Amino acid sequence: MILALSGGVGGAKLAQGLAFECAVGDLLIVVNTGDDFNYLGFHVSPDLDTVMYCLAGINDATRGWGIKDETWNFMAAAERLGTPTWFKIGDHDLATHVERTRRLAAGETLSEVTRFLCGRLGVRHRVAPMSDGQVGTIVHTSSGALDFQDYFVRLRCEPPVTGIEYRGVPAAAPAPEFATALWRDDLAAIVMTPSNPLLSIGPIIGLPNVSERIKEHSAPVIAVSPLVGGQAIKGPAAKIFRELGLDPTALGIARHYHGLIDGMVIDEIDSGLVDAIERLGIPTHVANTVMRNREDQQLLARHVLKFAMSLRKPRNA
Amino acid sequence: MILALSGGVGGAKLAQGLAFECAVGDLLIVVNTGDDFNYLGFHVSPDLDTVMYCLAGINDATRGWGIKDETWNFMAAAERLGTPTWFKIGDHDLATHVERTRRLAAGETLSEVTRFLCGRLGVRHRVAPMSDGQVGTIVHTSSGALDFQDYFVRLRCEPPVTGIEYRGVPAAAPAPEFATALWRDDLAAIVMTPSNPLLSIGPIIGLPNVSERIKEHSAPVIAVSPLVGGQAIKGPAAKIFRELGLDPTALGIARHYHGLIDGMVIDEIDSGLVDAIERLGIPTHVANTVMRNREDQQLLARHVLKFAMSLRKPRNA
Repeated sequence: MILALSGGVGGAKLAQGLAFECAVGDLLIVVNTGDDFNYLGFHVSPDLDTVMYCLAGINDATRGWGIKDETWNFMAAAERLGTPTWFKIGDHDLATHVERTRRLAAGETLSEVTRFLCGRLGVRHRVAPMSDGQVGTIVHTSSGALDFQDYFVRLRCEPPVTGIEYRGVPAAAPAPEFATALWRDDLAAIVMTPSNPLLSIGPIIGLPNVSERIKEHSAPVIAVSPLVGGQAIKGPAAKIFRELGLDPTALGIARHYHGLIDGMVIDEIDSGLVDAIERLGIPTHVANTVMRNREDQQLLARHVLKFAMSLRKPRNA
Repeated sequence: MILALSGGVGGAKLAQGLAFECAVGDLLIVVNTGDDFNYLGFHVSPDLDTVMYCLAGINDATRGWGIKDETWNFMAAAERLGTPTWFKIGDHDLATHVERTRRLAAGETLSEVTRFLCGRLGVRHRVAPMSDGQVGTIVHTSSGALDFQDYFVRLRCEPPVTGIEYRGVPAAAPAPEFATALWRDDLAAIVMTPSNPLLSIGPIIGLPNVSERIKEHSAPVIAVSPLVGGQAIKGPAAKIFRELGLDPTALGIARHYHGLIDGMVIDEIDSGLVDAIERLGIPTHVANTVMRNREDQQLLARHVLKFAMSLRKPRNA
């Protein structure tokens, strides 16, 4: 079985690629919930939604979030009423937030709600939140401490970041499916998808015992660099790396994950960094990591899986 | 000042007619909240919405509820997720429920929220809920006790009614604007609009001290019959009257309001009932009460106001 850790867009694309390559029971996608927030009374899980919509084939690939062929009539009416509208919710997307909120209020866990929503949307591979607990990423900036969505959407990642705090994470239990997967002996690979290492993967591996368990697991752990040519495909990863004094390149990503991973996949454009990364003791594989279409997603997934197989530690060695 | 008591469609139409005829400060429309309910986590106030949308000129006159040129994309997506969809909420209408729920959760009263929403929708005349308290009409039927919307929308008023209970009403305080209006000496008229006497006006006058105060008030109290030719224009009034052994005619309405009102307005088609109603000691005025358009609404409002003037008790008599 493959365990993939994912945030939003980039992670969701590779998750979809892996889904094309893996049988339904052979893949678990564990998704960051550090970005979850209460908006207009709804429990919104942006990364879970992006992954679900992507796997359901109803995502808006151009915008990178939400549902394709979306309409915005609720938002227009909300605007008229003076309701905050800085976080855009389409009419179809809204149904997800209403149903999730309704089920959580009725006592279901986020894992249960996610399983239910996936079922209704026709997502066959397993998707689980990283935790059913109350967590929330806080971005410390020169303008003060900000809730993640405040920083990310409302302020468009503009305030320089001075630190990132995974509030609630050290005390939150990994969700049951995630914990079960981490303690399985037969994992074929653990994949850090090309999501933001600090904002998306950080909360997941910040959960109690998770990074320790990943380190000691016999399965090869592969990270796909979200930085390509010193840039993020989407999102503020490079900007935040620079603001925190980190190297905003695939090498910087390798240093960040050092000690946790057994291999790195980097983009062709960064092939000049292979030697430097391998000098850290991290085997490195070069592939096209910029996923423009389904074929790119599937090809990258194949690269990741083959590379993982090549790194498998011999059993009972 | 005119005080109008209103439920949904019929009441809203006359309320709009009165708004055409009255200066902004000279009309208060007090609306039934016995139909309010929690739906998908939202506080829905069907009668307040109908009155607000009507006065804002954005109501769907054909359907009789909701907003004109409405779209249903949220509902379609909700249906896909298995969310209950028996109560139809359009994409624009939904913004009202979200904002109301959000403000109530933040501690505002329903009166405050209603004032706010009216302001944003451009409603200039005053609209107030009958109470800021927790109330809920229960319809006792041969199939058991039903929440109002369950009976009214989900079961389409089919189960025969055996009784109606205004739960919470005897302990709920009239909303501040309503109470203030009832204790004003200078009311020019109190108008029972042609809404269902049992389901819409009943909860309002069932609030503590309200019917006593209406009885003793010096202002003429006028009821407009919602039954025309033994039929309700819309809704189950005639059916329920029959099921409860009441006479489903304008005369039955007069008997129902007997002791509370100083005059009745009935439809031209019912002019044969004038003598019988007047024999109850209720002066009766005949007019066209079927409001098909703005002109009808305005004409009926004029009839009501003129009739009320004619019934004014002499001051210091």
